[in-house]
Order: sequence, then structure tokens, then C-alpha cells
Amino acid sequence: MADNAKAVNEVLDELLEAGDGPEVRIVEAMRYSALNGGKRIRPFLVTASADLFNVDRPSALRAAAAIEMVHCYSLIHDDLPAMDDDDLRRGKAACHIEFDEATAILAGDALLTKAFEVLADDRTHGNSTVRAELILVLAKAAGDAGMVGGQMLDLVAKDHALNMPEITRLQRMKTGALIAVSCEAGAIMGRASEKARHALHAYAHDIGLAFQIADDLLDVEGDEAEVGKKTGKDAAAGKATFVSLLGRERARAQAGLLADQAAMHLDLFEEKGKLLRDLAYFVVSRTA
Amino acid sequence: MADNAKAVNEVLDELLEAGDGPEVRIVEAMRYSALNGGKRIRPFLVTASADLFNVDRPSALRAAAAIEMVHCYSLIHDDLPAMDDDDLRRGKAACHIEFDEATAILAGDALLTKAFEVLADDRTHGNSTVRAELILVLAKAAGDAGMVGGQMLDLVAKDHALNMPEITRLQRMKTGALIAVSCEAGAIMGRASEKARHALHAYAHDIGLAFQIADDLLDVEGDEAEVGKKTGKDAAAGKATFVSLLGRERARAQAGLLADQAAMHLDLFEEKGKLLRDLAYFVVSRTA
Repeated sequence: MADNAKAVNEVLDELLEAGDGPEVRIVEAMRYSALNGGKRIRPFLVTASADLFNVDRPSALRAAAAIEMVHCYSLIHDDLPAMDDDDLRRGKAACHIEFDEATAILAGDALLTKAFEVLADDRTHGNSTVRAELILVLAKAAGDAGMVGGQMLDLVAKDHALNMPEITRLQRMKTGALIAVSCEAGAIMGRASEKARHALHAYAHDIGLAFQIADDLLDVEGDEAEVGKKTGKDAAAGKATFVSLLGRERARAQAGLLADQAAMHLDLFEEKGKLLRDLAYFVVSRTA
Repeated sequence: MADNAKAVNEVLDELLEAGDGPEVRIVEAMRYSALNGGKRIRPFLVTASADLFNVDRPSALRAAAAIEMVHCYSLIHDDLPAMDDDDLRRGKAACHIEFDEATAILAGDALLTKAFEVLADDRTHGNSTVRAELILVLAKAAGDAGMVGGQMLDLVAKDHALNMPEITRLQRMKTGALIAVSCEAGAIMGRASEKARHALHAYAHDIGLAFQIADDLLDVEGDEAEVGKKTGKDAAAGKATFVSLLGRERARAQAGLLADQAAMHLDLFEEKGKLLRDLAYFVVSRTA
């Protein structure tokens, strides 16, 4: 996973090359937020699922970088004062603190745009139908019916406590959709069978939910320095989470169950699915 | 032009259909900003240039709607308090006033994302190479090397007065790039010759600049109610514009010259280029 993160960082570094005009500040802000570490779970999912279908590594890494750009843009905008108002991200100042609000808004916009530019480029994949398909699923997952809609739902929900079905739907939109695309991208690039693609989708659904439960547990139990962002936020905001609704023990058990279930969806890939199976268990046991 | 605006509005109305969850607010904000009138100059450029190559009207209108979504997203974000801090847009409350800042940020994000979703969809064009090409040029025009970079440049420039080459470069990035894509989209969809595409690019370059000069003149001379946004802003902000650098008379003459030059680039299209030629003169004579 560390090797993969390093490889993706190199591709991001190359894709986010700064020009030399006075507007270079925008690229500096994009680089600041996209190259500041992070676990790179989504890129890992892209390359690991691409490996199932023997997709060229450079293609997979470019798609992985594009999806990570979308993730990073969402973090920049989520941290803005008008949104979650977070000063800290991955242990460093949030983009709008390091730069300013206007630059952060624009850097997010530019990262989102760049993601589609990268996917549309024939260096990402030689087949234009594959490129258009990648863009279509990413746009659907990131837009008003996916990630952005989930963020809206989260803001609207501040006024009332969500129940389990509502919170599950919120998670699917806000984080699950992009995780699903990360798993499906490999299948799209590798022109996999519908059956394989569905298996990856089901896997993604389970680890996405498991990931969120683990995140909620970290917010309650995690060490702020290790997690790299403020903890205890959900409770302080009186926000319903999987942990507040289920309690710690049942939440932890549910996450473990989801990891088992996710691993099982990969049975058809036999030995080749090992990396993704391991990830499912990593997701629920992580401490940062 | 009014007929075209109506047709594009119908397509936007269809593409921005609201779901029924609590997150429907995001689609309401997208619709508020994308369906609130506007001259629809970019969509007009798309369909008029598509007509040169006999592109199907439904295809052209979907591409036109996608480009207009990018334009509308940029207006929403530009109007934010952290950016230009404008309360009024097209004679109505800006998105962040009508809704709130968070919703406006997300609505802009979602419109940008939706634009790429629309272009990647095979209902926009049956050929995936054409779709990928449309996405590539739009992303380049809208991103850090185009529109967003231009907006950054504009913010950075607030500290010092720009000279003519700087202000020309700013305009090309901030508004020129998207106008150029609007003209090239028809050529891409119609698989036009390089020569035809270059002619449209040159035309777009000239009308883009002419459009900006006309905009600067309107900021000085225009009627606020008619223009639909605050006027006199540039002078109040001590901002260098084509008008402040050239004076009104020379600016007006320059805009007229650019319109002539733009029209000449269309010579190879003969009679078929009439609509676009007329637009070049409309751009410099508009009062709103």
C-alpha cells in the first residue's frame, strides 16, 4: 500500500506541474492539497482492481490519480468555513488556512476539472469508449446524485438526527459512490465481464460502509495526532453516526461483518483477490 | 438567439431534474442558477458552429447545455463572498444569497460535474472519440490553465494594476477559453477539417476579446437594471480594464475592429457563416 501511494504521488506530481505565470498560486494550492500524504485508499482500490484484469500499470495509475484528485477537491471544499469549517487536514493546515478561502475554492474546482482532463486523455487509455465510460461513472458518483448530493444531505441533516436507513444512504452518497468507482475503474479499463464488475461493486459497497463505521469509531476513540484531524467532532455537534446509533461494540462487530462479506464477494477472483481481501480487513482495523 | 436560448433552457430543464430526497436542495440551487435567463451566448456559439457541419440539433444542444453549466458554475463561485462578493446576478439574488454559501459552493461543484456527465453520455454523441475530445478541450479550457487560472490571476492582480498584455492574457484565460470551446465544439462534433477548426478558434479569440471590452464598457456606461448586475465595480475597485487603459473611444474602436476581424475569419464558410458573423457585431453593440 505504501508502494502504491508512492507511485500515485509520482503521477500526481507529474500531472500537477506548475506553470510560470502569476496564477501559479492555483497549482501550488492544488499540489499542497493533493500531495500532502493521505492513505491513498482509493488509488489502491483502482490499481488492485485493475490488476485483476491485467490492466497496464501506467493506465491504472493515471485513473487512480484522477479519482484521488476528486477526493482531494472534496476535502478542500468540505473544510471551507461555510461548510465543515475545519482548520486541520491530514495533520496540516487546511487549504483555506494555508492559502485563503478564494484560492481554496478555486483549487478544488481545478482539481475536479483536472480529473476529467486526465481521464479524457488517451494516455490514460487507448480506447475512447473506455475513457468516456470512466468519465461517466466518475461524474455520476461525484455529482448531485453522489458525493456532492451526500454532502448536501449532511448539511441539511444538521437540523435533525438521522436514523440508520438515512445515515446509510448518506454514507453511500457521500463516500460510498467514489469508493465504488475506484473499484469499478479497473473493471472498466480491463473490459471485465458484468459478473466481475458486479462483484467489485458489491465489495465496494461493503467496504465503503465498513470504512465509514471505522471512521466514526476513530472520531470517538482515535488519537488526534495520529488521525491527523480533529476528533470528537461528531459528538460535539450532536451528530448521529453509526457509533451513536449502534454503540461502539455493535458498530465494531458490524464493521467486521462487512469486511467478511466484502471478502466473500471476491471469491470468483480466487487467489488474485487477496490484496483486496486484505484491504477489507485493513479498513476496519486502521488507527488513522 | 432567443429561440436558441429557449431550446437550451428546455434541455437544461430536462438534464437538471430534481430527485426527491432531502438533498433536493442541491438540484434546486443548480436549477436556480442555470435556468435564470442569461444571454446564452455560449450555447448559441455551440449550435451555430455545429450547424456549419450539419451536426444533429439534439447533440449540439446537449453540448451547449454542458458548456453553459460550466459557465453558470463559474458565476456561482465567482459571486461568493470569498471571491467577488456579488449579491446580484442576472437581476436576481446570487445563489449564495438565495440559498446559502455552502449550498452555492456545492451547486457550483455539481454543475461542473454534471457538464462532464452530459458530455460523456452517448446521447450527446454516438462516437466515443468525439465525446472524449469534447471533454478534453472543455476540461483544459475550464481548469487551472484556463478559466479557473484566469480567476486566480484576477484575484492575484487585485494588488497591482495590470498592463495591456497582462489584461489580454487574463481575459483569454478567464473568459476566452470557454468561448473558444463553444466555437470548437461544433467542429469536433462535426469532425470538421483542421482548417475549419482553426478558423473557428481564431474567430472565438477575437469575439472573446471583443466581448470583454464590451463588458468593460457596460461596467462604465451600462444601466444597472438592464445589465442585471452591479455596474461601476471595476472603477470603484481601482481595477485596470480595457476601458481604463485605452479610454472609452479607443476601446470602442478596438471592439469594432475585433468584430470585423472575427467576421473575416469565417470567410471560408461563405453564406453559412452569416449567423456567427452577425453575432460578432451583436457582441460589441449589446446593452446588457
